[in-house]
Amino acid sequence: MGRTQLQDAVPMTLGQEFKAYATTIGEDIQRLKNAQELLLEINMGATAIGTKVNAPEGYPEICVAYLAKEVGIPLTLSPDLIEATVDTGAYVQIMGTLKRSAVKISKICNDLRLLSSGPRTGLNEINLPARQPGSSIMPGKVNPVIPEVVNQTCFYVIGQDLTVTMAAEAGQLQLNVMEPVIAFAMFTSLDYLSNAIQTLIDKCIKGITANVDHCYNMVMNSIGIVTQLNPIIGYEESASIAGEALKTNKSVHQIAVLERKLITQEKWDEIYSLQNLIHPKFITK
Amino acid sequence: MGRTQLQDAVPMTLGQEFKAYATTIGEDIQRLKNAQELLLEINMGATAIGTKVNAPEGYPEICVAYLAKEVGIPLTLSPDLIEATVDTGAYVQIMGTLKRSAVKISKICNDLRLLSSGPRTGLNEINLPARQPGSSIMPGKVNPVIPEVVNQTCFYVIGQDLTVTMAAEAGQLQLNVMEPVIAFAMFTSLDYLSNAIQTLIDKCIKGITANVDHCYNMVMNSIGIVTQLNPIIGYEESASIAGEALKTNKSVHQIAVLERKLITQEKWDEIYSLQNLIHPKFITK
Amino acid sequence: MGRTQLQDAVPMTLGQEFKAYATTIGEDIQRLKNAQELLLEINMGATAIGTKVNAPEGYPEICVAYLAKEVGIPLTLSPDLIEATVDTGAYVQIMGTLKRSAVKISKICNDLRLLSSGPRTGLNEINLPARQPGSSIMPGKVNPVIPEVVNQTCFYVIGQDLTVTMAAEAGQLQLNVMEPVIAFAMFTSLDYLSNAIQTLIDKCIKGITANVDHCYNMVMNSIGIVTQLNPIIGYEESASIAGEALKTNKSVHQIAVLERKLITQEKWDEIYSLQNLIHPKFITK
Amino acid sequence: MGRTQLQDAVPMTLGQEFKAYATTIGEDIQRLKNAQELLLEINMGATAIGTKVNAPEGYPEICVAYLAKEVGIPLTLSPDLIEATVDTGAYVQIMGTLKRSAVKISKICNDLRLLSSGPRTGLNEINLPARQPGSSIMPGKVNPVIPEVVNQTCFYVIGQDLTVTMAAEAGQLQLNVMEPVIAFAMFTSLDYLSNAIQTLIDKCIKGITANVDHCYNMVMNSIGIVTQLNPIIGYEESASIAGEALKTNKSVHQIAVLERKLITQEKWDEIYSLQNLIHPKFITK
Repeated sequence: MGRTQLQDAVPMTLGQEFKAYATTIGEDIQRLKNAQELLLEINMGATAIGTKVNAPEGYPEICVAYLAKEVGIPLTLSPDLIEATVDTGAYVQIMGTLKRSAVKISKICNDLRLLSSGPRTGLNEINLPARQPGSSIMPGKVNPVIPEVVNQTCFYVIGQDLTVTMAAEAGQLQLNVMEPVIAFAMFTSLDYLSNAIQTLIDKCIKGITANVDHCYNMVMNSIGIVTQLNPIIGYEESASIAGEALKTNKSVHQIAVLERKLITQEKWDEIYSLQNLIHPKFITK
Repeated sequence: MGRTQLQDAVPMTLGQEFKAYATTIGEDIQRLKNAQELLLEINMGATAIGTKVNAPEGYPEICVAYLAKEVGIPLTLSPDLIEATVDTGAYVQIMGTLKRSAVKISKICNDLRLLSSGPRTGLNEINLPARQPGSSIMPGKVNPVIPEVVNQTCFYVIGQDLTVTMAAEAGQLQLNVMEPVIAFAMFTSLDYLSNAIQTLIDKCIKGITANVDHCYNMVMNSIGIVTQLNPIIGYEESASIAGEALKTNKSVHQIAVLERKLITQEKWDEIYSLQNLIHPKFITK
Repeated sequence: MGRTQLQDAVPMTLGQEFKAYATTIGEDIQRLKNAQELLLEINMGATAIGTKVNAPEGYPEICVAYLAKEVGIPLTLSPDLIEATVDTGAYVQIMGTLKRSAVKISKICNDLRLLSSGPRTGLNEINLPARQPGSSIMPGKVNPVIPEVVNQTCFYVIGQDLTVTMAAEAGQLQLNVMEPVIAFAMFTSLDYLSNAIQTLIDKCIKGITANVDHCYNMVMNSIGIVTQLNPIIGYEESASIAGEALKTNKSVHQIAVLERKLITQEKWDEIYSLQNLIHPKFITK
Repeated sequence: MGRTQLQDAVPMTLGQEFKAYATTIGEDIQRLKNAQELLLEINMGATAIGTKVNAPEGYPEICVAYLAKEVGIPLTLSPDLIEATVDTGAYVQIMGTLKRSAVKISKICNDLRLLSSGPRTGLNEINLPARQPGSSIMPGKVNPVIPEVVNQTCFYVIGQDLTVTMAAEAGQLQLNVMEPVIAFAMFTSLDYLSNAIQTLIDKCIKGITANVDHCYNMVMNSIGIVTQLNPIIGYEESASIAGEALKTNKSVHQIAVLERKLITQEKWDEIYSLQNLIHPKFITK
């Protein structure tokens, strides 16, 4: 069941839901690659404050060309060597982008925990692979430990983004002397988050199963599906059905088809076929 | 149903749940009162940098006594006037405490939105008062708009705590010249959060109703209640029942009483009486 | 005088210093333009959760094309409409980039305040235009009020970036309902920061003057200029001169030319000509 | 020289300045002790969600009493065991207080670096003990490496406060499952900051020396000391002297005593005696 504001909305498939996760992560991979390019500009050979004092003519160019060849990375010399010596903008940008990834991954883990909540008194749409007994007092309890640890890693990364922000702001005049803590924050964040993502994939995502029948029943028993009657019976009639359903605990089908006889069973079957629930056509009278 | 890690745990009442909210907010009122006292120490009359240059002997003492009388607040003169001139620690402390309140209130609003999720495919334990039609496309949808706006206010306050932190850190030598933005952050946070809390009380909390039958059925249908059989039949037997219940979709009662006949119906009724669900006694064989 | 870690380093010009500010801000204009493009992808017409329920075939495409034409902005339809409905990554990216600008501008304002500190007991390299009497007790005091207010605006923006981060992380399932506070944070940040920057330009940057003689004297009186003797007399001899200068309060010229006679006055004049201080050539024996 | 907004203000002693640091740190020790007390309330023995299910009557009381005796800490049982099971407010409070300490210590380190800036083109009031050669290119350069590393530690702690904030906000219903990252953030912050403080004391604070003559000359050569003439010659005359001094580079003494003959040399000596600079008396005509 699709949900907005945690309220029942309209149907969708788990495939659509997980494809959206793939899309959003795919965008971040692109953003991180873009941000990464900012690191290719270096100021090596510009000496003390970037004025090239005590360096022979052409020294920075030679340095960078040699280093680029040695490490096999397309490094280039920064066009403003004085700016390049003090600026830590590239780190702020990369860490900000990494934070964006942490925000998105944390949101996905929140969703995984919501979707697997229950089993009896939660959403229970999916099952995360069981990793360990969940409680020494509550028999049979299984906890979403993997998404939980990933959430926590994301909170670490978001905190470290602030550390980088403060360190970058603390640069003074011709140097930013706070670079060590920037490096610490970035390397630990990259390490922890990479490990967390790999763990999420291996120990959780790959083993997720769907509670197909329960999902289908929830959709068909929901009031939200009345939405798809709008084009046929109008918003007001639909709202009236929704209201009655909520009050009486009846199903939309019961009220719309059996009691109010607003549409035929045939039409109902067309609208609420699995195919149409997933890729809704615009069905009118 | 009590839930830990979003998984079904053991029973509790909504009263116990809401009393915990009251307790946690009550603690914060105390913390804020404590933090507030830090504002009573002032440095008035200490002139430029706190050395009392150009001030007649006893001038600060007279200033503070006069001001305290005029405004009716027990102000006192700071024991170190030079420190008091530059220090913004009191603001950091108060804003940090306000942030703590925002964190707690945001958590409570998250809970309210979880508990009222559904109505058919969510937890649906409580109903928040409906405030406005929730959707122009989905008839009958009601959204938890009040807790949502309070969450957002809390995010504002948490952001402003960072603003205060950075401003406080930026003080230099004998003065912190960033106090205006500290005042801005504190006053807007106090205003917005006060309004949000009052709105939460008036437009949401006061009108909350419980779905009593649904709550009771969820508890009795949950697997978590097997926990209370531990002292009688042991953890392993309980775990075995939990496993079977999960696999077969049967109830704990069905397996424990009717099929495995591990306890009598009479004992069951004693254990799962409403009274014992709320204030569990230690019942053994 | 160029300074690293707030310690005297090697000479540079104010022109080089301010050009570096222009470079760093120029990079941010580019980053903001890049980030802005993320806003061009929209999901209009995809209805409730992005599945196009109740929308006629081709409706989103028509919506976006029409809107793009109407507002004259090259909007495009998001390739994953379900993802686009819930995702707030574009806002996190833009706000993160705006935060980066705030970090850089704050650093520049810190520098302006350092460089204009004094006048007698600070660096006193530049004069910011006087805006208002600085003190009711200290006659003639002029404060760097414009950079100070810009610093504070930057702290506001950095705080609001956190607000956006938290709001983005709080999205759930098919919608992020926290978008209003994201919009609030972004619009106020853009407004305040734009105004602050314009004020900084008009009321401060444009009227800055240099204390040319004082700057020149500081450089020539500094110990840091011994650096440029390294290639001629070696690091150890230079270090020995630096040590003696520090202990005796003598100038490098006094020790190197007059006392130790390590280089001729002619050579000294070549090395420490204004031209060579700014764009140092590699001068050896 | 006392400085506000980085501009020359009125005289003070280094003793007054460092005593203010002691005062501000002393306050934080008190705040941390207060916050620490919040940890004494525990919920041990309340089982799964704090309802004491499966626990014999009086079990939590016995647990806490036993544990308190065993570890020798005056632990008490929380009055609301359900709230105590989920609440992480104590951690937010302690971490917020630790952040306050980090903010203050960072400000002090910023000051130490400012006061020791130079030696020739900075404030140069104090000397930090030299710890290592400061540059491979600039002979004799000594950098304030210890305060720098402490600043960076403070940025780490401030970042971790955000991590704790986010983790605390993420608690749901009857448990906050994000406690491990809270513990990680708190323990690493406590460790790193304790080490940083000890290093700051041992490797920096204890070896600080003052440039007494330079400090005295800066004060007497400053324009700010004109402030102390206000009560005798009035603010306007003082402002006029300040203006002329700034324009002509003359000293206040030169203008006020020798040229304008506004006060006698005797009076001048009384006002600007070392004793009166430190603890100014209110001297009028």
